[in-house]
Formats: sequence, structure tokens, C-alpha cells
Amino acid sequence: MAGAALAGVAGPAAAKDGGRRDWSIADIVEAPSVIDLALSRDGSEVAYILRRGDVKENREIFELHVVSIASRLDRIVATSSWLGALKLIPSQDAWSVLGDFGEGVQLYRFDRSGTRITIASQPDPVLVGSADGAISGMGDNPLVRFGVTSYRWRSDGRALFYSVLERQKSNPKPLFDAAVVEVSSRRRWEPTVNVQFYVRESDNKPVAIHSRPGSDIIARLLGGDADWQGETLYFSTTDDQERASRVTRWRWSASRGVERPVAGENAASDSLVGPYGGALSVHGYGADRRIIETSVGGSVHDYGPFVGTLSDPRSPGIWRSPEGDRVLVSVRLLDSPRYSILLLTKDGRRQLYSTEGSLTRCSFDKDLQTGACIQQGLARPPRLVSVDVLTGRVRPIADLAPRYDALRRLRFEPRSWRNAMGYASTGFIVWPSRYVATKRYPLIVITHGSDADEQFVSGGLQWNYPLQLFAQRGYIVALVNDPSPHQSATLTQAASAWSNCGEGMPPRQVQDLEWLNGVATYEALVRELVDAGAVDPTQVGIAGYSRGSQMVNVAITNSNVFRAASSGDGGYLEPAAWRFNRCTYAGVFGGGPGKASTDDLYRRLAPSYRAGNATGAILQQMAEPRAGAVDFYQSLRDAGVPAQITLYPGESEASDETHFFHIPANRMTAMHENLCWFDFWLRGISGSPVECPRIGDWKEMAIDWRNRKSRE
Amino acid sequence: MAGAALAGVAGPAAAKDGGRRDWSIADIVEAPSVIDLALSRDGSEVAYILRRGDVKENREIFELHVVSIASRLDRIVATSSWLGALKLIPSQDAWSVLGDFGEGVQLYRFDRSGTRITIASQPDPVLVGSADGAISGMGDNPLVRFGVTSYRWRSDGRALFYSVLERQKSNPKPLFDAAVVEVSSRRRWEPTVNVQFYVRESDNKPVAIHSRPGSDIIARLLGGDADWQGETLYFSTTDDQERASRVTRWRWSASRGVERPVAGENAASDSLVGPYGGALSVHGYGADRRIIETSVGGSVHDYGPFVGTLSDPRSPGIWRSPEGDRVLVSVRLLDSPRYSILLLTKDGRRQLYSTEGSLTRCSFDKDLQTGACIQQGLARPPRLVSVDVLTGRVRPIADLAPRYDALRRLRFEPRSWRNAMGYASTGFIVWPSRYVATKRYPLIVITHGSDADEQFVSGGLQWNYPLQLFAQRGYIVALVNDPSPHQSATLTQAASAWSNCGEGMPPRQVQDLEWLNGVATYEALVRELVDAGAVDPTQVGIAGYSRGSQMVNVAITNSNVFRAASSGDGGYLEPAAWRFNRCTYAGVFGGGPGKASTDDLYRRLAPSYRAGNATGAILQQMAEPRAGAVDFYQSLRDAGVPAQITLYPGESEASDETHFFHIPANRMTAMHENLCWFDFWLRGISGSPVECPRIGDWKEMAIDWRNRKSRE
Repeated sequence: MAGAALAGVAGPAAAKDGGRRDWSIADIVEAPSVIDLALSRDGSEVAYILRRGDVKENREIFELHVVSIASRLDRIVATSSWLGALKLIPSQDAWSVLGDFGEGVQLYRFDRSGTRITIASQPDPVLVGSADGAISGMGDNPLVRFGVTSYRWRSDGRALFYSVLERQKSNPKPLFDAAVVEVSSRRRWEPTVNVQFYVRESDNKPVAIHSRPGSDIIARLLGGDADWQGETLYFSTTDDQERASRVTRWRWSASRGVERPVAGENAASDSLVGPYGGALSVHGYGADRRIIETSVGGSVHDYGPFVGTLSDPRSPGIWRSPEGDRVLVSVRLLDSPRYSILLLTKDGRRQLYSTEGSLTRCSFDKDLQTGACIQQGLARPPRLVSVDVLTGRVRPIADLAPRYDALRRLRFEPRSWRNAMGYASTGFIVWPSRYVATKRYPLIVITHGSDADEQFVSGGLQWNYPLQLFAQRGYIVALVNDPSPHQSATLTQAASAWSNCGEGMPPRQVQDLEWLNGVATYEALVRELVDAGAVDPTQVGIAGYSRGSQMVNVAITNSNVFRAASSGDGGYLEPAAWRFNRCTYAGVFGGGPGKASTDDLYRRLAPSYRAGNATGAILQQMAEPRAGAVDFYQSLRDAGVPAQITLYPGESEASDETHFFHIPANRMTAMHENLCWFDFWLRGISGSPVECPRIGDWKEMAIDWRNRKSRE
Repeated sequence: MAGAALAGVAGPAAAKDGGRRDWSIADIVEAPSVIDLALSRDGSEVAYILRRGDVKENREIFELHVVSIASRLDRIVATSSWLGALKLIPSQDAWSVLGDFGEGVQLYRFDRSGTRITIASQPDPVLVGSADGAISGMGDNPLVRFGVTSYRWRSDGRALFYSVLERQKSNPKPLFDAAVVEVSSRRRWEPTVNVQFYVRESDNKPVAIHSRPGSDIIARLLGGDADWQGETLYFSTTDDQERASRVTRWRWSASRGVERPVAGENAASDSLVGPYGGALSVHGYGADRRIIETSVGGSVHDYGPFVGTLSDPRSPGIWRSPEGDRVLVSVRLLDSPRYSILLLTKDGRRQLYSTEGSLTRCSFDKDLQTGACIQQGLARPPRLVSVDVLTGRVRPIADLAPRYDALRRLRFEPRSWRNAMGYASTGFIVWPSRYVATKRYPLIVITHGSDADEQFVSGGLQWNYPLQLFAQRGYIVALVNDPSPHQSATLTQAASAWSNCGEGMPPRQVQDLEWLNGVATYEALVRELVDAGAVDPTQVGIAGYSRGSQMVNVAITNSNVFRAASSGDGGYLEPAAWRFNRCTYAGVFGGGPGKASTDDLYRRLAPSYRAGNATGAILQQMAEPRAGAVDFYQSLRDAGVPAQITLYPGESEASDETHFFHIPANRMTAMHENLCWFDFWLRGISGSPVECPRIGDWKEMAIDWRNRKSRE
């Protein structure tokens, strides 16, 4: 892979825009994101983890930075192939972080000088990722060995909970039934591991308090979702591999050991405690949503209307003042999708901190006086800001990606659309560089469910779709969210039926609300842009990965507005995936394929069954050779529809690329392929100015396709 | 795995039969087979390779033996984890053999004293088998590293062709389309290899004459099917991964190098040359089959009626006298399925060598005066015999498995059946020990397509179905072949349409002739045995692996005679396998699933689509977690049918069991599981005298099943 050559796609320094240069693919791949941030005890410094791609090294690099707020000096105190879970150590002038410094991921202490001390380690770390000999990991992580996987400090900092992976010696033995189903959904055998929970008090020896098999996904991936309340530790386990819904919550204390608590009591680990000591949540739908605090006793406090969600996983957090009377909670706003911080107080104050774009990854001092966040937006590179809680003033401390200030600013316009089914969706229009209102442009819709929001170069949203280059090359790009389930009880019910094996709603309606609903949104926005004279209706494409790939595959086989599509690492909704998605398929299709009772429902939605209805050329870019995607590819080709499936390789013949690509060369090649694909299938451009190695095949498919169309 | 405990299943020394002890599972696992045999130049000695399971070591052992015909002394001159391709080195008093003696499989010379000399080697052998880091191999081979994979001596012994695997350094790069389909059908990535063909003359340096990618299955698995004709070498290559039908034949000579020969000329590598120098073949159907020799000029010689086939892959071979006027060819007889040797001479003689059971794996001297073969039968352990070509006399030289003479002799009765569709099948009835004509017995049908013939403990036929123990435990066992395609032009056409994407016959008729035809045979034989008062119609089961698993899965979902089934490592005929079987599925179903045009055809045959029609409990024993088998299992359970799927492990977490199980502990556990399964589901026996670890689950399923039945 000629990384350097690809970095130049679309001429890195060619076009100028008020002294700003054009985006290149390398700019997208190397765009940094802050994944964790923690203020020092005295509030004078901020530590943060920056994750970025490195094209020359062809890998991701994780950096631990410390910034002095006064001097604005930013120092890199450590780099690693993986860092995570950065926290201030309570009552210390130091941070703790999980990282790999040559001995697999272990738990370390860093002070402001960058001195590293091991806090906890497991000397035989376990390979985690998509590779031979590894246990499977999270979708976006590179291949890393893990010893310690999670930890929690007790609030006094004198006790530590942590979890480790431990390899089990196991004689190979036959597997039965559900275990066979499970391994049939994986690419390879995985070693047997246990997850071991430890507590260490002061400098005593760690005490092993509980052990779980690696199949317990709450234990393995979330460290049991552990939570200290005073001297008592709470943690969760589950036996269900498909769903995390069968959860048992446990408590541990030094005196009584591990006990199963009564149902209800602290069963939910993520309860957000409000100023009255009750649980904060948002009730209602659409404009009627309100923040409510429900106390244990049952009394309710109403904080008024709020069209948003609390502590979204993409920017989680809640902070309480020492007296508990003031609470700051990170929020995601739904009307104009962005992240911010909301203050709620016992005396009834309520304040949303306002900035351009979003405030994410915040950290506040113990007294809840001052904090630090990342400010970022679709067009704004991330910068570190300080937040004065009392005044609400947000002040810049340091730009974290100054290189991006030198790049062409694209114009992102927030929009919302109401579709023919009556549901609303949010999103953004990205206008082409040098846009002229009198001209019609090609359009590409990009979707990933709910990630169209104010984040800078969000990999979750744009995956391998180089929207910046699309805009530069004269495309209008629409970034579109699914209709939010928070707008209606019926949509919430549909989402619930989908994940609960169909409970509460018939599958046909779930199909309508969860997939065809989004397609209706795309049709509404395309219509709007065509009617406005901005878009050429014969040049409309769609792209999306994961949840987005479902939408892409359904849209191209159920709507007639799209002429080209790029679908990323999908396969869900295909009959081939029923095997390991039986519960959700019961929700979507009423059961498995091949039955009279489910036939119509499969034929209505399963992309490979609808291949003959496809209205355009379909590219599938894969991290693994998923059966459903291959079935879709072959069904399309059987039906005479132009289609290509591309499988991107792992680092070696022993590993795979991950769902969210982590290898820069793959990301660049995939973006390049998408540029070529849409240029060719929407605009008839054959490879200039970028070289498209597969163009010969596409030309042949295009001729067959035109012939087929002319026969119809 | 308690191998020793299992070895005692059914009481090894408990029951006696005229001084003979009962078969144990270990006896089946350890039963030896001769896989290659070669006479010495002077005819005084025979070398052979014996392959056997070893329960204590829990692996297979390959032994190279040399027997003196005069003294009948049998010496083991080498043992290995893999041996193959034993040949006499022309004009030498020594043999050549491929074997692994610690450096991967290379080519060695052995003389009668057992002295081993390396003939050709590749110092960086490539792992072959079902394991991480290995390229895929043949179904029944253990995990072995291969350097040299095949070889052919020129008839003067002064030139040698051989092929080696060579690992390619490769940068991971994206795969497209057909290549993605291909890897989607495999469990894991494989390293990239080339197959390199060499010729070495006398003691010169080897010359690399041709190189092929590892995807060329003729090059990789068959060493290019190379063949010396005088000084010229012919070999084949193919580009087609699914079918080996697109074959190119090449020739090489020292003077002219590699050239593509004109079509037709030596294009077929397997032509059997007769006494007139023409190609031998069998024409016609059923009782009208005749051996015909067709000369290059077109003249035809008719050797008369012959109900059999020539040089079957299970016992191949053809030998010509120095003058070419006499030809010996190994044959398989169809009416009463066994193997023998047929002499054809230019003066019109024709002689079939008769023995009890079969003559297989023969080797003859240069003058075609004398030879050696293995004599064996269903009830006869293998022995080495000499064959006097002139007189036809067959004389025993050595018993190769004397241990089996001490075991209970079972009664195998050859039978043939004509079914309701009018087609005939051959097979055998195995009568229970202590059979009493006045009693009705449970029956188990065992099938593997065409392997019910006179071989001793044929793994191909009985896989992990311990028929010897079934008979001892009071079952009647029927070993049944598919209706032979050689009996009718229509059946031959069906077989051809199946493998040629449906060419020449509509899929419905292919389904009838290739699957429902066999089911009709089972129904005919069950009816016959029930009518004869021998079989209890409520206690009929069926078992088979691979091709047999297709028949089992179709039979239990299309017939109402079976109450229990055991299906071995299958998944073909399932919609999930369409992805990598598109050509044959076009023959069977008319295309992929999910289309109006193919719906009825899938619903008519695909086992998972017919799960609700299943009439009995279905066990699937797997070497890999094949998607189709898992779909069948889940569909059965969804339909309330008792079902279990068991996945047997490889040697380690980095490997799989092979299609034909090669790990003795797995074979023993699987046979044990089959004993338990049929005992429970046909006879209601709950585990005595063998312990059945899953019996609790089965009892629960049986209650649900009875309740379902009573509701119907």
C-alpha cells in the first residue's frame, strides 16, 4: 500500500482557500481524538489521552499528555499502542491509567513529571482482538495483550478494585448445542480465559473476590461495571451471551465478602444521582421530554423540559458538589445534535453551558468549581477548554490539533427533516466547496444511526467515507441520523421489540419503524434538495457502516432514489446471520428464514432476497468475510446488479482488520475506493484525478447494467 | 477424555463367541488399513504403508513395513506421523516414499535394510491441515508440514519429477469478489503458498519447470497429476477453485521446456491404456455395461459385459506387460460390491481374479508375472497375498491384523434392493449377534454413498458409527449404497446435472434422483425387513457422514420411517452453504434461496426448512461449526424436535478436528455418543451399560417431544 501516494489524493497542497489547503485522506486518518481526560487534584493541570492514526508508521498511536492550565504547556508524558481509563488517583497528585508499555496492558501511576509506576499487573497477559490465539475484543481496538482490563478507586483512594484476564489451561473437549452456535459465529477458536476481580486495600496483598468465565461479557468487557459506595463495592455479572439483560448485581465488603444483594437495591449501576439524592432521568417524548429526579422514597422533582439525553456513552459523566446540592451532568442535545454540560441545583437552578459545537470528555474538580473539557465540532478541531462552573464561562486553553486549522473549512449546516411516515430526523448538510446555487450537484447520504453530531472527524460517523474530500470534489453530503426513538412512544416501543425478541410489537411494524422509516427520511431530504434545485436526482448515493450498512442495504433495495451505495462491514438482516441473532431476528422477521410464517417478512427486508430490486451499484467493504455480506454480493451479481465486495486484511495472515478499521493503510485504501466508486457510478468519472485500480471491471458491469435496464 | 475407560465400552472380554471376544470401540479405532503397497524389483519382497489409530498415544501412526515373501517375515522399517506415495524406484532395489521424519514431509529412499536417504527436500515445510497458520489439506490427514508433496519417476529411474510447497512472503492486501467468497467458506486465513514443480535428471541440480499459486488445486493436491511418457513429462493445472474441470495439460521436455500441448493430445491424464494401445473404459448401463477399448485411430475393441468400474480411486492401478499385450487393471464390481483385478489380453482373454472379499492395493512385477495385493472383506481382516498372474492363484503371505482374528466374527449378508422409483441399490445386512428369527430387532441404516463394500472396518463407510458394537448390542445394521448411476442413463445424467450447475436436467428431477431416490431405497429395505418379521418398525434409525449426512438429513425430514438419526459433519443442502456451492446448488435448487423461482425447491429438500417434518431425534457430530448444520440444529429445536449438535475439538485451541476424524479420543467419544443416542432414542435405554453424560437433556427433550406428538 502506497500510503504516501494515497496521502496525496485530491492534491494536498493544490487548491487553496484563503491560504488554507485542501483536505487529504491522510488528514482524515491522522485526525486525533481525545478519549479520556482528567483534571489534577489542584485543578492546575489536565491529563488526557489522544488517539491518532499515523500513516508513516501504519498504526494507531495513543499519547498521554499533561497540560498546565496556567502556562498552556502541553507535554507528552507517554506513548503506547493502547491507553485507556485515565483517572485522577483520589487524594494524590497523580493519575492512573491502563496502558501497554511492553508488558501488555497493566495499571500504572503517572505523576506530572511523567514518572511511571506499576500499580497492578498480571504477568501473563492475554491477546485480545481479531487474531489467531486471541480472545475477541471491542470493535475498534487494535490487537493488544491485556493483563488488567479495568479498575475503580474507592473515593478515599486507599482501596482499589481491578479486574484481570487470566488464561485457563484447558483440555480440548467437545462442545454442545448453544456453545456450538456461539463458536459458529466466530472466525476462529479462542483461548479459554477467566475474568478475575481483585480488591487491594492500602498496600496489602490483593484479595481475589470473584471469578467469572470469559463468556460473561459484563465481567470481560466492562469489568463488572464496578462501583464503590463508601466501603462497599458493587459489581455485576451476566450469564447471557447474546444479551446483557440477565444481570446479577453483587456487593462486596471486607467484612462480609461477596453477597447477592436484594433485587432492586443498587441493581442499576448507571443511576445518575441528582441534587436530591434521587435518580435523574429524562421522561416523555419529543418536545414533552422533561428531566425528572425520583428519590428512593418515591418523591419526584421536575427540572422542566429537556430535549436531550443524559451521560451519553460517547461523552459520559456526572459530577456532584461535596454537599451534593449541585450536580453537573454531561448531556447530548437531540434537536441540534451536540454535547454539552448541564448544571442542576437543589435551589432550582438549571444551566446549559453554551459553546460553539460540543463540550465533551469533561473533568471537574472536587469542589465543582472549575473543570476542563474538549470543545469540538464538525468544523472545529478539538481544543482543550476550561469551564468555570459558577459563571459558565468557557475559555480556551490549548488547540489539540493545530494542523487542522490550516485546512479548508467546510460548511456544515444543521438540518432536520420530517418524512412521509411523520417522523423527524436530524442531521447536517455539508455544502461543496465553491458551491453555486444555480447548479445541481451529486449527493451522498452518510449515516451511522445517531452519530451525525458536533464531533470533529468522527470515525463513528464517517468511517471510511471521506466526506471532506467528497465536499471538495463537488458533492453535497448529507449526514443523517435515524429518527430518534425519543420523539415517540411508538418508536421507543419498536426499538424495544427489536432488542427483546419481538415483545410488544409485530415484526412488520418493527421493520417499518426501524428501517423503512429511515429510508423515508432519506427520500424526504433528497426530495427537498432536488426541489430546491441543489441536487441532481440521477446522482444520489448512500454510504454507511455497521448500523449504517443495514440502512444502506435496505435503502438501495427498497427505494428508487439511489444510484450507488457503499456499505461498510455489515451482514445483519441477512438470513445467514439468523444463526447468532435469533432474539433480534424474532423481533425483525418473526423467526428464522424458510418458514411460511416468516417468508413475506424476509422478502420485505432481507437485502439478499431483494437483490433484484436494487437500483444502483453496491460496494461492500469488509473487515471480515461475513457470510451475509457475501450472500448479498452474490445475489446482486446473480440479479445483474453491479456489485463489489472488498475484504481488507489484518496486520498479518493471523489476524483480521477490525469492524472500525484500525490500520491506516486500510483506511486510506478504503476511502480511496469510495471516492472512485461514487465518482464512477454517480458521475461517470473514470479515475481522474485519482487512480482506480478496479475501474476496468466496473466499466464491464456498467455496460451489463445499462443493457439490463434498457431491457426492462 | 478417558480413552482407556471408553476402550472398554461394551465389555472387551465379557462376552465370548467360540473363544472370540467382543469388539470394543478401541478395536475399531485401532483397525489398520494398508494405504500403499509396492513389490521389490525382483518380486521377493513387498513394502507397504500401514495406517492405524493408537488409543494410548491418541494419534494416528503410519508404519512402513517390508515383508519377505519367502520367509513371510514382516519388519517395520520406519514409523512416522505421515507416510504416503510408496513406489519402487525403477531399476533399483529400493523404494521411495514421502514421509515426515522430523523435517516435514520430504522424499526419501528406503532399501530393504531400512536405510533412509533423502532424495529431495524443501527445507522450509508448510503446515497443512485445519489449523491456525496452516493451508487447508485433504479431509482425512492429520496436521503435517509438507515440503515435497508428490513425485513421479521416469520409467528408467534416471529422472524425477517432484512438487513442493513454498511459502510466499506477502504483504496483506485487499481481496475482491470471488476471492472474498472463497475465504468466507474457510475458518481462518491461510498463508500464501506456491506449488513449485521440479525435474531432476541423474544427479544434476533440480530444474524448476513451473510454478503455480496454491489456489490451483490440481497442482497443490495432485502434484499436477504428472505423468512421464518416455522423455516427456505431462502435467495439468487449473484456475478454477470450485471445479477442477477447467484443466490445462502441459508437456515438458529437457530440450523444449514447458509447452501447452494441442487440445486432446494427452489432455486426459487418467486414460487407461489397453492391450491395443487404446483407452479402456466401461460403456452402457446396468447389465448392458461392456468394457471397450478405443484406439487413437478410432477403432474399437469390445471385451464383453462387465458390471463394474475400472481403477476406482479407493484401489487404483493398471499394469501392462513389457510387450503391452497383457493388461491388468484393478476393478470395483457393482453387483456385489468388492474390488478385484481383471486381466485383459490382446488374444482376447479376460480373467477376473477371484477371492473371498476384495483384492486391493495391488502391485505387480515388471514382467506381469507375479504380484502382491491386500485381501480383505467386511468380516476379513487384511492380509497380504501373492497373485500368480498366469494361473490366477492367490496365496496368503501374511496376516496384517492378527488381533482381529480373535474378535467375534459378524455376519454380513450382501443384499440388493429395488425401490419404489424402480432403481436398485446394493448393500449388506449385518445380523445381530445371537440373532433369533422369531424376534423383532431395532435397525440402524448406515450410508456413505458408495462405500458399503468388501473392505475391513472401512472408515469411509462407518466413520464414527460403531456398527460392530451395534450388532453386538442387538441391532440389525443395514449398510446401504446410493442407487448406482451406472445402472441408468437418467441417473448418470442426474449426477452430471448436479455437478454441472444443472445442465441437462431440471432441479426437481435432480432432487428426486439424487436424494429422494436413496430415501426410497431405505424405505424399501425397512419394509422388507419389517415384513420379514426381523425389524421393529418403531425402532428404525439412520446414520451417515458427509454424503451420508445429506441422506440422513433428507431422510429424517422426508420419510416417516426413522425415529432417530446421527448425521456426521454435514451442512450441504442448507441455504447457508449456497455461498460456496453455487454451481451445484444451481443443479439442486435452481439457484440461491429467497427467490420465488427457488422457494419450492428449497422447501422440498433443505433440511432446516423441513425441520418441522422431522420424525425423530437428530444428533449432528461436527469437526467444524458449519453454519448449515447449526441452522438445522436451531430449526429443529425451534420446531420442538429433539436435537443435539456436538463439536469435536482439534488437538489444541489453534486447530480443528478433520472431516474424517483423526484424533482417536474424539473417534471413541463420538462412537460412544452414537451408542448412547440410538440406545436412548430407539430403545429407551438410559445409559446402561455405557454411561451417557447428556442423558438428562435427552430425557427432557423426549418429554417435550412426546407432548408435541400427543398434541398432533
